[in-house]
Amino acid sequence: MAASFMKKVPLLMPKLQKQLAIKSYLEPVRPDLERVDARIRAQSDAFDPGITGYVEYAAESSGKRLRPALVLMAAHATGGVREEQIDLAVVVELIHLASLIHDDVLDNAEVRRARPTMNAKWGVELSVLLGDCLFAHALKLCTRFEDAAISRAVADAANEVCTGEILQTQRRYDLNLSVPDYLRIISMKTAALFRVSTELAARLNRAPGIMVDALRIYGDAIGTAYQIYDDCLDLFGSEAGFGKTLGTDLKKGKLTLPVLHTLQQLNPADLAKVSEALLHGNADDHEAILRRVVEMGGHLYSVRKAQELLEKADKSLEVLPSNDYTTRLRDFARAFHKELDGLK
Amino acid sequence: MAASFMKKVPLLMPKLQKQLAIKSYLEPVRPDLERVDARIRAQSDAFDPGITGYVEYAAESSGKRLRPALVLMAAHATGGVREEQIDLAVVVELIHLASLIHDDVLDNAEVRRARPTMNAKWGVELSVLLGDCLFAHALKLCTRFEDAAISRAVADAANEVCTGEILQTQRRYDLNLSVPDYLRIISMKTAALFRVSTELAARLNRAPGIMVDALRIYGDAIGTAYQIYDDCLDLFGSEAGFGKTLGTDLKKGKLTLPVLHTLQQLNPADLAKVSEALLHGNADDHEAILRRVVEMGGHLYSVRKAQELLEKADKSLEVLPSNDYTTRLRDFARAFHKELDGLK
Repeated sequence: MAASFMKKVPLLMPKLQKQLAIKSYLEPVRPDLERVDARIRAQSDAFDPGITGYVEYAAESSGKRLRPALVLMAAHATGGVREEQIDLAVVVELIHLASLIHDDVLDNAEVRRARPTMNAKWGVELSVLLGDCLFAHALKLCTRFEDAAISRAVADAANEVCTGEILQTQRRYDLNLSVPDYLRIISMKTAALFRVSTELAARLNRAPGIMVDALRIYGDAIGTAYQIYDDCLDLFGSEAGFGKTLGTDLKKGKLTLPVLHTLQQLNPADLAKVSEALLHGNADDHEAILRRVVEMGGHLYSVRKAQELLEKADKSLEVLPSNDYTTRLRDFARAFHKELDGLK
Repeated sequence: MAASFMKKVPLLMPKLQKQLAIKSYLEPVRPDLERVDARIRAQSDAFDPGITGYVEYAAESSGKRLRPALVLMAAHATGGVREEQIDLAVVVELIHLASLIHDDVLDNAEVRRARPTMNAKWGVELSVLLGDCLFAHALKLCTRFEDAAISRAVADAANEVCTGEILQTQRRYDLNLSVPDYLRIISMKTAALFRVSTELAARLNRAPGIMVDALRIYGDAIGTAYQIYDDCLDLFGSEAGFGKTLGTDLKKGKLTLPVLHTLQQLNPADLAKVSEALLHGNADDHEAILRRVVEMGGHLYSVRKAQELLEKADKSLEVLPSNDYTTRLRDFARAFHKELDGLK
């Protein structure tokens, strides 16, 4: 049932069958990123021999390393990459990996980045505990920062990620979830780590407050736009093209921007029908909802919202010194914006 | 089935129907403990309003606060309780609470300290995420310590707790698990937090290395003995008397000291029978195993092993200055020892 559902829906938004090409914009930091990657893989040595295999599996994921790349670009833009920023990149990625492991447990997801998830491979118990271990390890690495305010901000962001997830869980099947509340939740659960990536990279370079603030705004806007894109992907994407379990949001009552926007446009009679289909419908009913969402411009609205955030991100960097990396950060926001154009 | 199982087995060890009275030995630090308790409750203010209710529920548990009490006693014994040790007590208890929340999820436990567990009340998703939040918050509080080595040791201990749990999960149904391996696992999953409680309390007072080491040995021995007692409780205790879900270890193939000791005494034919009952048996078969364990002295051996550790704990403190609190720490080990005598 789930499989046929996933086969039909992408026809609605054929463009969502391929990965965004934004990854190529991270190329300038490729050498630093390889250092970060090597260091992430080396972390398994710090664990008990009985669990290094699992840590290696988690670390070897072929993820985009988007957060580390942003740490490195923000560092370059504000004076250069020092050892502490490599540490920061490792720490934010480990927290991200830990949160993905727990997410996959809670979503019962079987595939992530074209590989079996840890829970599919080794079960729920191991996955919950391994997420905890990675989490503890990341926060231990934080103690290397001379300025305790850096560790505090990272731990805060980790807390925010989980809190955002809890708030989202609480609002499942809540047809009254407003767009601002949705945006606040995704700013917590996703943008928090993007925000500390760019902000703290600048702070570690002792950049002036105005630049630190700008990079904070930049990270927040990129992260929020990224989550909107990811939520569209879950609704309209093709599982084969992305190597992860999709289509879980509607099934679990997680109402995301395209759906929320549509719900808010409906007259009371239609709203009642769609609500009924959301709450008690089967896969066919859910597919009908998605067709309705597209007809009523829910996906267009969402793409546009993400683009607004990317414009904000781009503009926020006007206060940065104009150098190659400031340009690259702005180019990244613009390229992401342009790719989203293609989804309209 | 489980219920009748739990009613019959305590007859084997009637003494395990009441809580140990060791709590009274923590009375001297009651006023400090109340400060710690108030501060633990106040932590909920640091969380998003959407989740403070859950944090309060977790914080309001009527636990013994054994780890904070040990922090405070070790601090008193080595010069007095300063603000940093109150923080340490809060941090170790929060990590403990977070790990209990995840344990209850993984054990599917419904009752803890005579109240519904978080997963029984609010489900698995919320419980996993709330555990993560508490964990992140505890490690954030660690950044208050001036000496980063303190936070590092706490994060290490948190990692060790989860690693110990993973190792235990890996060895389920492993009839070849040796007693030293079992002891190593419980030293990680339980004693690690006891160890940092006493060790770091002394380090924060800049106590001489020999005293810090002694308190580390003390905490490790007390924590390991406590887990052996707790494992006996799960096998032989009465659910009504302890207000928590018991009898899950055997059902989940978690082989603990009384059972391991018995397995290692059996001749091959009996071992094959008991193994079959362990792997594929029902509640009656498990009860028969427990009778066998008692007959073959598995519980006596375990009680004795815990007592040896308590003797080691007592003796380790000989190098401490003789003052009221050193005496109280030693009395605590001795009282625990004496209570275990009653279980023979």
